[in-house]
Amino acid sequence: MLKLHHAPNSRAGRIVWLLEELKLDYEINKMAFDPKDLKSDEHRARHPLGRVPVLEDGDITLYESGAIVEYLVRRHSDGSLIPDVQSPLFPQYLQWFHYCEGMVMPPVNTIVVQTILLPPARQNKEALSQAQRLLTRALQPINENLAGKDYLIGDFSAADIMLGHACFMARRLECVANEMSNLLVYIARLEARPPFKIGITM
Amino acid sequence: MLKLHHAPNSRAGRIVWLLEELKLDYEINKMAFDPKDLKSDEHRARHPLGRVPVLEDGDITLYESGAIVEYLVRRHSDGSLIPDVQSPLFPQYLQWFHYCEGMVMPPVNTIVVQTILLPPARQNKEALSQAQRLLTRALQPINENLAGKDYLIGDFSAADIMLGHACFMARRLECVANEMSNLLVYIARLEARPPFKIGITM
Repeated sequence: MLKLHHAPNSRAGRIVWLLEELKLDYEINKMAFDPKDLKSDEHRARHPLGRVPVLEDGDITLYESGAIVEYLVRRHSDGSLIPDVQSPLFPQYLQWFHYCEGMVMPPVNTIVVQTILLPPARQNKEALSQAQRLLTRALQPINENLAGKDYLIGDFSAADIMLGHACFMARRLECVANEMSNLLVYIARLEARPPFKIGITM
Repeated sequence: MLKLHHAPNSRAGRIVWLLEELKLDYEINKMAFDPKDLKSDEHRARHPLGRVPVLEDGDITLYESGAIVEYLVRRHSDGSLIPDVQSPLFPQYLQWFHYCEGMVMPPVNTIVVQTILLPPARQNKEALSQAQRLLTRALQPINENLAGKDYLIGDFSAADIMLGHACFMARRLECVANEMSNLLVYIARLEARPPFKIGITM
């Protein structure tokens, strides 16, 4: 049985969402988003830096949400969430999948650190405002790409699991401007998917 | 013909390296790592934020280095740099490929911004030292993984193009401690590959 090591409000939500989309059976190890769980010896044996998500599949232990998404889609599904290599959608799929951690998550992480994780005395306003500006800029191409489309490449794909989740986090941090109407509609469309709701509230 | 839009000391070096490993024919558009080139209208038509690398392949334009690496390996090679989905190496391959942008590049970027890109008056020492500590921690699991291995998953793979290049950048930023001997030997092994040399010096 697949086993997911999870903490709330983390990238682990992506994996719950995907497991639900794929209708896979899985167990979940719910930890607190707190050093006492994440930095425990037990969890550090799974991920040396005490991060989530971590997936176990029999003898295999795997971390990095992008890796887990690709692993599940390629090993545990019929591949319907990834376009075929020869499909004209394949390059766009790859681009938006990788845009998530390449462009959107670095400023999202900085904003979370500078508003939620650090105590107020150690927060740095300049680092925060730089990250907010960078995130706003990084979201713009996604908003433009979504014109006339329901999902990032048209049909729902694993790129939405990655980048859609990052967009949802950006909106929760109040970094999606009202003018980005395609993006707001897109995030609402994701939120309406029952598997997404399970992923986010788990 | 494949055309790569490039600037020195950027992730575009990964793509030159890979193109050389795969012995593919390509053209290169060498730009300066400077707003006059990267933020020009001409380049913003290829990448709205004026980033590199960007790859053109006929009608296809594609950005994000991870996407371009996967695109080239899957569309323009025999797939020898990616383990088969059923291979026991496939999960490790995915993990280290995605660890590059997920864990290593965010602090690398912060260090570059806080030492090279920002004028001294705007540099933030606390942001710099946080990133240096985070990077040192993020490199440790790579160093441990490399014990007894020539490359990240044993044989050379596209994961080395991504994460190996990030490790090379970390060393150039003087963030690889002398105690990380597996990692230092690994970086030296990458540097000895003729395609890597072309990628880095282009």
